[in-house]
Amino acid sequence: MLLLTIDRKSAVPIYRQIIDRVVHLVDGGTLSPGDRLPSSRILARSTGIHRSSVTRAYEELWALGYLESRPGSYSTIRRRARRLTGVERAQPLLDWSAKVVPAARGARESSALLSRDRPAKSDSRVLDFSRLTADVQLTPRDAVRRCFKAVLREDAGQALQYGEPAGYHPLRETIALRLRTHGVDVTPEEIVVTGGAQQALDLLLRALARPGDRIVVESPTYSVALHLFRFHGLDLQSIPVRPQGMDLDALEQALAGQRPALLYTIPNFHNPTGITTNQVHRERLLALCEKHRLPLVEDGFEEEMKYFGKAVLPIKSMDRRDMVAYVGTLSKVVFPGLRIGWIAAPRPLADSVQAIQRLCSLSGNHLAQAAVHRFFATGAYEAHLRRVHKTYRRRMQAMIDGLRENLPRRGVSWTEPQGGYTLWLQVSGTKLAEQALHDRLLAAGVKLSSGRLFHAHAPRHPCFRVSICCSTADEISEGCRRIGRVLRAAVEG
Amino acid sequence: MLLLTIDRKSAVPIYRQIIDRVVHLVDGGTLSPGDRLPSSRILARSTGIHRSSVTRAYEELWALGYLESRPGSYSTIRRRARRLTGVERAQPLLDWSAKVVPAARGARESSALLSRDRPAKSDSRVLDFSRLTADVQLTPRDAVRRCFKAVLREDAGQALQYGEPAGYHPLRETIALRLRTHGVDVTPEEIVVTGGAQQALDLLLRALARPGDRIVVESPTYSVALHLFRFHGLDLQSIPVRPQGMDLDALEQALAGQRPALLYTIPNFHNPTGITTNQVHRERLLALCEKHRLPLVEDGFEEEMKYFGKAVLPIKSMDRRDMVAYVGTLSKVVFPGLRIGWIAAPRPLADSVQAIQRLCSLSGNHLAQAAVHRFFATGAYEAHLRRVHKTYRRRMQAMIDGLRENLPRRGVSWTEPQGGYTLWLQVSGTKLAEQALHDRLLAAGVKLSSGRLFHAHAPRHPCFRVSICCSTADEISEGCRRIGRVLRAAVEG
Repeated sequence: MLLLTIDRKSAVPIYRQIIDRVVHLVDGGTLSPGDRLPSSRILARSTGIHRSSVTRAYEELWALGYLESRPGSYSTIRRRARRLTGVERAQPLLDWSAKVVPAARGARESSALLSRDRPAKSDSRVLDFSRLTADVQLTPRDAVRRCFKAVLREDAGQALQYGEPAGYHPLRETIALRLRTHGVDVTPEEIVVTGGAQQALDLLLRALARPGDRIVVESPTYSVALHLFRFHGLDLQSIPVRPQGMDLDALEQALAGQRPALLYTIPNFHNPTGITTNQVHRERLLALCEKHRLPLVEDGFEEEMKYFGKAVLPIKSMDRRDMVAYVGTLSKVVFPGLRIGWIAAPRPLADSVQAIQRLCSLSGNHLAQAAVHRFFATGAYEAHLRRVHKTYRRRMQAMIDGLRENLPRRGVSWTEPQGGYTLWLQVSGTKLAEQALHDRLLAAGVKLSSGRLFHAHAPRHPCFRVSICCSTADEISEGCRRIGRVLRAAVEG
Repeated sequence: MLLLTIDRKSAVPIYRQIIDRVVHLVDGGTLSPGDRLPSSRILARSTGIHRSSVTRAYEELWALGYLESRPGSYSTIRRRARRLTGVERAQPLLDWSAKVVPAARGARESSALLSRDRPAKSDSRVLDFSRLTADVQLTPRDAVRRCFKAVLREDAGQALQYGEPAGYHPLRETIALRLRTHGVDVTPEEIVVTGGAQQALDLLLRALARPGDRIVVESPTYSVALHLFRFHGLDLQSIPVRPQGMDLDALEQALAGQRPALLYTIPNFHNPTGITTNQVHRERLLALCEKHRLPLVEDGFEEEMKYFGKAVLPIKSMDRRDMVAYVGTLSKVVFPGLRIGWIAAPRPLADSVQAIQRLCSLSGNHLAQAAVHRFFATGAYEAHLRRVHKTYRRRMQAMIDGLRENLPRRGVSWTEPQGGYTLWLQVSGTKLAEQALHDRLLAAGVKLSSGRLFHAHAPRHPCFRVSICCSTADEISEGCRRIGRVLRAAVEG
């Protein structure tokens, strides 16, 4: 017979007390599978409980898997699959690593490769010139805090709800306005806010390319983009980057008789080389794309980093025939952690992109978008930009000076960027492999990014990306001395 | 001869004054393409400016496209492509709507369809039972504000930087802990934080399915997932939902001789029907997936909305053989605008998903993840949950009571959910088409979601999703009276 202790004065409803009691008896082993419970009528009568409470309890016990069948005259205890603890797991039935699609397996390999080249955080003796992200020391914390505070005070209800798939409209207006300072004249409706430039690229690829499609890229180019292209199953037509930028003669030849899905270029402070193309190069590149009806994806990820004062305008600024999808981001200027980037694209493309974004993520981070809008509106953005320009200009100058002073004249060459964060070091006069040179540099206390990360095919000579963004001018000068020592030995030896 | 007014006391460097002046003369038409500039030597001598300033200015003017060639003895003004203003745009060269891939065109159609069913915001007389999102009135603004404030005060430097692709580790720990209250025992390493449940689904599809693959879905099912599946080019095997949940006999038949890529199910408070499957159903479904080696994607989007007290545990809680990828989200509980969802999956799958996330977006919103972690850690989450449970329980009860009181006994049926936000109304006893009935309801002042949105193929009878989440109990009671009037006329008429 079922023993029930019901507390009529408890805040716990009686039906729930019955459930708890039965569960306790089953889990404790007092009741076993096959044991019969009294009918609800009998239990109700014997305990003085209202029958509806018993029925409701039995109904729930059944839903929870403790009873064999829905309450009738007799119910029996059921052998219920137990919830697990970690130790009870059995051998997996699927080989998940094989079950994922080939592109996903490739993504794991890409991710492992990208991780391998990350600096060991622990070693403070190593000067790290491999990172490409806004310096955490320069984060305008107070201004950001004020923006979030204000939005959460005045507009929390809305800002914590879903936003528009294309992004918070006032931010789209702000971005359109900001693009005017770079000569780009687009409407807010041509702007789609994305979760950073990387997501912007991913969305453009989803809109414009199918697995197996050919796209045109620079070589070298931004490493994570390269892996993203591979993840999309794209066939890469690599065009070499010369000191003036992408080799346009090679591009013209490559386009003969072909219809690639798009061309991807980084005309300012190119990642990794730091090269900025000039106006003539930009005009010719755009003309080639127009001639071949080739969508041009312009990555302006460091558009704002023109701290040496030169200001070639984006290709998008000349885009009379709507050929260009322009990608921008705040991640390299101020706060990568908020994931704010954007696409400025011809309206039908922008509409497609926002539709894809809607299906794949419903909306972006509405609160962050509203806070960033305020960051612009209060002038904090401009103030921040002026401040970091000074700092990065000093750092880049220290790097350029340091390399000039310390590097051998022969067998080594490097770019001298007009802004941005990175420059490119090529070591042609050595027999050492890139990895060996990389390890020697690391042993000497400098971490650079390996050139192979930025190439679809391994480069001929060892090359390295050198980033100035997270080191002080003094660290950079010291780093140049270390690089100099290693390279002098490598080139002479 | 070039007229230059140089201000030697100005803070503007002299080379930049030269640039500004030449640009001004060209843009104003005083200098024209083909006009010759003096050599740098002559200009320097005639103005008393240091020659290096002139050289630097000419160098930049060339980069900016204002000079025909690099500075030599003579430089001539170049016909530079002008930056555009909106009115200067010419006919686009590409038909972008045709240029985007078919899936992207489909996404635009999907998005248009989803938008069409949105309520007109302006009409305050219409009671809106179509929205499925946490009620903005219940947002715990102060608690959220405190969390952001604290993170930005104590950890702004890190929180505004890129985060780990798998998510902020303390939040992954918190989620793993929270899942234990639902009987799910996973490690933080099996958790990947995503930008909401929708992005979690998208990532799982990218990891597990290729265009053309077949996947198994419930019919009806979550509308935006349906469109997402189409965007991925998947072949949908629809299994009807019965009052007890997905028809498992039909599933078993459908699986004979097939190898779908995955099965997608919403066992709790199913969207749109509101049905919660019982323990027996869950065990059998899991057994079927194990038998057929079929990855099971369990969407637990309203796991936390068990406000009536019944607590069938997730399928994932029984997942001894690592068959289940579980999707969770905070969007339906507290703040959709922060975009916090997650996947709890077997480790190799979790690793693939985070690798894809890395390539496609580098990192999630680090600041939001840190703030949400604090929202849990301070107990604000639990307090919020208790509060909203009371509210939503009252609302759902008002809806169930209201429909019982007002709807005709014949020709209409509806589900009575055990929690969550939605129930499902089927109108079999009418000759009216769904759209006509929808319009009549709207004219009577109630907005419901059309059933066709949730079906791969149009349903036989008009059906509607009814959501309680954004209306008060009084509004719900009044809404039921309005629905009752329309349906009585439709079914009797």
